[in-house]
Amino acid sequence: MPSYQPPLRDMQFLLHEVFEVTQEFQAMPRHAEVDADTINAVLEEAGRFATEVVLPLNASGDEEGCRLDRDTHEVATPGGFKQAYARYVEGGWPALSCDPEYGGQGLPMVLNQCLYEMLNSANQAWAMYPGLSHGAYEALHTYGTEAQKQLYLPKLTSGEWTGTMCLTEAHCGTDLGLLRTRAEPQADGSFKLTGNKIFISAGEHDLAENIVHLVLARLPDAPAGSKGISLFVVPKFLVNEDGSLGARNPIFCGGLEHKMGIHGNATAQLNLDGAVGTLVGEPNKGLAAMFVMMNAARLGVGNQSLGLTEIAFQNALAYAKDRLQMRSLSGTKAKDKPADPIIVHPDVRRMLLTAKAYAEGGRALSTFCCVLIDKELHHPDEKVRKDSAELVALLTPVVKAFLTDNGLAATVLSQQVYGGHGYIREWGMEQFVRDARINMIYEGTNGIQALDLLGRKVLGNQGASLKKFGKLVARLVEEEGVNEKMAEFINPIATLGEQMTKFTTEIGFKGMQNPDEVGAASVDYLRVAGHLVFGYLFARMAQVALRQIAAGNSDPFYLGKLQTARFYFAKLFPETATLMRTARAGSRVLMDSDAALA
Amino acid sequence: MPSYQPPLRDMQFLLHEVFEVTQEFQAMPRHAEVDADTINAVLEEAGRFATEVVLPLNASGDEEGCRLDRDTHEVATPGGFKQAYARYVEGGWPALSCDPEYGGQGLPMVLNQCLYEMLNSANQAWAMYPGLSHGAYEALHTYGTEAQKQLYLPKLTSGEWTGTMCLTEAHCGTDLGLLRTRAEPQADGSFKLTGNKIFISAGEHDLAENIVHLVLARLPDAPAGSKGISLFVVPKFLVNEDGSLGARNPIFCGGLEHKMGIHGNATAQLNLDGAVGTLVGEPNKGLAAMFVMMNAARLGVGNQSLGLTEIAFQNALAYAKDRLQMRSLSGTKAKDKPADPIIVHPDVRRMLLTAKAYAEGGRALSTFCCVLIDKELHHPDEKVRKDSAELVALLTPVVKAFLTDNGLAATVLSQQVYGGHGYIREWGMEQFVRDARINMIYEGTNGIQALDLLGRKVLGNQGASLKKFGKLVARLVEEEGVNEKMAEFINPIATLGEQMTKFTTEIGFKGMQNPDEVGAASVDYLRVAGHLVFGYLFARMAQVALRQIAAGNSDPFYLGKLQTARFYFAKLFPETATLMRTARAGSRVLMDSDAALA
Repeated sequence: MPSYQPPLRDMQFLLHEVFEVTQEFQAMPRHAEVDADTINAVLEEAGRFATEVVLPLNASGDEEGCRLDRDTHEVATPGGFKQAYARYVEGGWPALSCDPEYGGQGLPMVLNQCLYEMLNSANQAWAMYPGLSHGAYEALHTYGTEAQKQLYLPKLTSGEWTGTMCLTEAHCGTDLGLLRTRAEPQADGSFKLTGNKIFISAGEHDLAENIVHLVLARLPDAPAGSKGISLFVVPKFLVNEDGSLGARNPIFCGGLEHKMGIHGNATAQLNLDGAVGTLVGEPNKGLAAMFVMMNAARLGVGNQSLGLTEIAFQNALAYAKDRLQMRSLSGTKAKDKPADPIIVHPDVRRMLLTAKAYAEGGRALSTFCCVLIDKELHHPDEKVRKDSAELVALLTPVVKAFLTDNGLAATVLSQQVYGGHGYIREWGMEQFVRDARINMIYEGTNGIQALDLLGRKVLGNQGASLKKFGKLVARLVEEEGVNEKMAEFINPIATLGEQMTKFTTEIGFKGMQNPDEVGAASVDYLRVAGHLVFGYLFARMAQVALRQIAAGNSDPFYLGKLQTARFYFAKLFPETATLMRTARAGSRVLMDSDAALA
Repeated sequence: MPSYQPPLRDMQFLLHEVFEVTQEFQAMPRHAEVDADTINAVLEEAGRFATEVVLPLNASGDEEGCRLDRDTHEVATPGGFKQAYARYVEGGWPALSCDPEYGGQGLPMVLNQCLYEMLNSANQAWAMYPGLSHGAYEALHTYGTEAQKQLYLPKLTSGEWTGTMCLTEAHCGTDLGLLRTRAEPQADGSFKLTGNKIFISAGEHDLAENIVHLVLARLPDAPAGSKGISLFVVPKFLVNEDGSLGARNPIFCGGLEHKMGIHGNATAQLNLDGAVGTLVGEPNKGLAAMFVMMNAARLGVGNQSLGLTEIAFQNALAYAKDRLQMRSLSGTKAKDKPADPIIVHPDVRRMLLTAKAYAEGGRALSTFCCVLIDKELHHPDEKVRKDSAELVALLTPVVKAFLTDNGLAATVLSQQVYGGHGYIREWGMEQFVRDARINMIYEGTNGIQALDLLGRKVLGNQGASLKKFGKLVARLVEEEGVNEKMAEFINPIATLGEQMTKFTTEIGFKGMQNPDEVGAASVDYLRVAGHLVFGYLFARMAQVALRQIAAGNSDPFYLGKLQTARFYFAKLFPETATLMRTARAGSRVLMDSDAALA
């Protein structure tokens, strides 16, 4: 059974030493009081909760799965899930970064991200129950009427109720313009919704007394396509004005999916049969509201793979130190033992260091991004808010796709370290792979993320957002350009930064002639962008580590950080050489293939 | 539920047009009579058997798994497996390429490879029951006494009995020198074996009346380590001299593993409690005999992933043509439909073409390799036999590791084409991923394959075998060097061939200073070698296709082949640029990481 050590040291390193968050917070009235002690205490408690309460339910939840009672339409989650959730609510965790106006603790988003990384390491399937609530919370907080906010936000904040996002239908996932669920206006201003949704994560369960579904549907007079979609809030139980629960709303679970992984989470088919809802935001503007939920969810999905990468790495590392097999190629290392531990083998170290670099790069990126979100939300300077929002928008598809592709690679390599034992369920490594696989698919496949990045976020504003990020890279290059010790970390990103500008312009020009050129380059482009971001963040981490070492700090953490950064630049970053070449191969080789794909 | 169309056209293309096997066979007395009609008829029948009998049991076998009765130690395979195996035996398939002296049909190995590719597409878990018999057959055929051959080979040939390879113990997989199972000599010349084996594929089941276990164990006076291992044949039921079954031998299934995939195959823990066996080959020389089994098994494992790659591709292609979602970036394609089929999107085509190129490259390599095996076994010219054997030895780790790494990538991409539906069990795509995952692990992890290739097969003879392969490449380059139409296929391999020579020498020199340099470069090296081989084979396939087109043949198959080859060189082959760079990064970045891996 896998074990887990919350990566508190690395989180603290990022928060306090690399991003100096308390200094950032001091500029924000909402967070000015948040000091390092508070942060560390929250992280420590969160790590304890994840490890002690949630982790022990991961394998059993996978084995047991969820059960639908077809008579009552109720879903039973795996043993222990309900009790763990009750403790989560009791501990006040759902409220951590919610608005104090609705009972939240008002702590920075970046702390919530750390909490969720640890919950995801411990049990992704379980973490999705509270996790999905955040999307619903965000959408209502941004677009809800005052009455909707008063009715729903306090209960979502406390965690007494959970939320869902009901988008997908059997015939449409990516292409929401095709959706068919109808919403009929009623005399009292409410709507009755009828249709069928599928793939609704945490769509029905027994953890909370009510479920707040955010549902995309069409009004009777709605224009065709994505401009005719509206967003509705549809509670499982109707809510009286005093907040008490009323009648059961006819939004019923018609089936649960049998999936490759995340068995502990109920992936529901939901049938709406005249279910009562109220409109969120303006009619036919549902997609905009949906994107508020979706962007939060996309960052959350990247964070899921970060969590899996970390726990897979930790266990593979422990196994590699323990498992005796063969002798080192360069001479016996453990003379007193019948064989050397497999960590002496260079390729085992390559596998471990790959997972570690992906975990640490991913954590740096998620943290960086969430600090930007805190600024976007609470910085007093409008320009800072706007710039931060722009960078978050740029980085969101990178977090979602790069971290989840890396997450599959890292969990597969960590499983590989175990040899045959990695394929056996009891060791728990294969579950990480199965769970990690969904993260590349849901909340917009990674192919869609790549189109979002290159088509919308980069070329959509003539590279303006990318230039903003480029300036951060340039500033670091300038700062450290004459520091010989930083050269190994600075030179690669300085070069890639320049190549990237040219590369982007090139694709932009080709795309104007033929839009398929954008689609043909997008996936490779996203990975190059991912490495530019990772490279920048590894250079910043190395910068801090080198300064500490120069100052005489002998904590081996800093040397370890340098070693990981060196590995990253030597063995992972060079992937960009191939990616730029294959991206440049253009669309013809893909599109002129009708005979091959006959 | 996935469907399957046996890739007969591509097999025939390779056998008849690229490798011109009947011409090759004419030089071998054993196969001189094997003509194209015979080959095609066998392939067609084999495809029908795989599709009609075995494929329908794939999903149900995965769902149901195997059950051990702890009282009787008997294992029940999933519903239908036993009946399908009976039909397999009835059809004479086990005997296809076995020695006529023991009742075999004596057909070339390459036909058996085609049969197994199709069985693996249809149902890898089922195909492993007959598949494992081949290793046991080969070991006994090569090293058995006449009595052992007479006793076991006819029944293995007919398929009435199946075989296993019992190597692994809980504390040793790769490092067989550590194994502890003991063999005590008895007065009658037999041995009594005691010990515990794990991970024995097809180790216990209800398909056949007897199971012939080939077991590695230690004699009482055996030297420590891998030089003290002997091979024994240990039947489940003792066999009387007349071939009838005797008493139950105490080699009992103590448990079945719960695995990520291949649920339909019984992965058994076997407890030997004084089980009676006879020695195969010389005492303490068991590893040599084991490698006969193992090499056959390694090629078989590559073939498993080839099968999964093909069926995953076929289904993803069909889905991509059927699924309507979004419009083409370059303008609506299906005006009469609410959205375009997703095959219009460049990145969907990239995913499909990647899987297709891996399938066709893999099939070409497996076929190439098996024709070499047929020459190794049956060519009258000793030099041809020796050269063929040398190339087979060189290519075996490439087939095993390159095809199985590609197989995971291809099944993951094919699953990705399905979006959310790919994660749902009913669609069958996720099973291909789970099944494909084991192929990277068993019969020597892919890391071990890479060490075998670079350390033993390449540097072990100062690059002599590699040069033999290099000569084939050079000959093709010479032949086609002035053909403009071939330039796009020839130039990349000409360049890589040269780079590879330098690259190999470089690693060889570094490895003499420090053997860890070999371990640090080996995995990247194997993938570069894989691309050199694939590049060579795609160039040969393109050569045939171009000639056919030039001759006026309008079969779109040839154009499709060219398109796939172009895609391969544009989008997959360039991976070598990064791989050579990361291989050159050397061992220090891996070995100087104790602080990072603390």
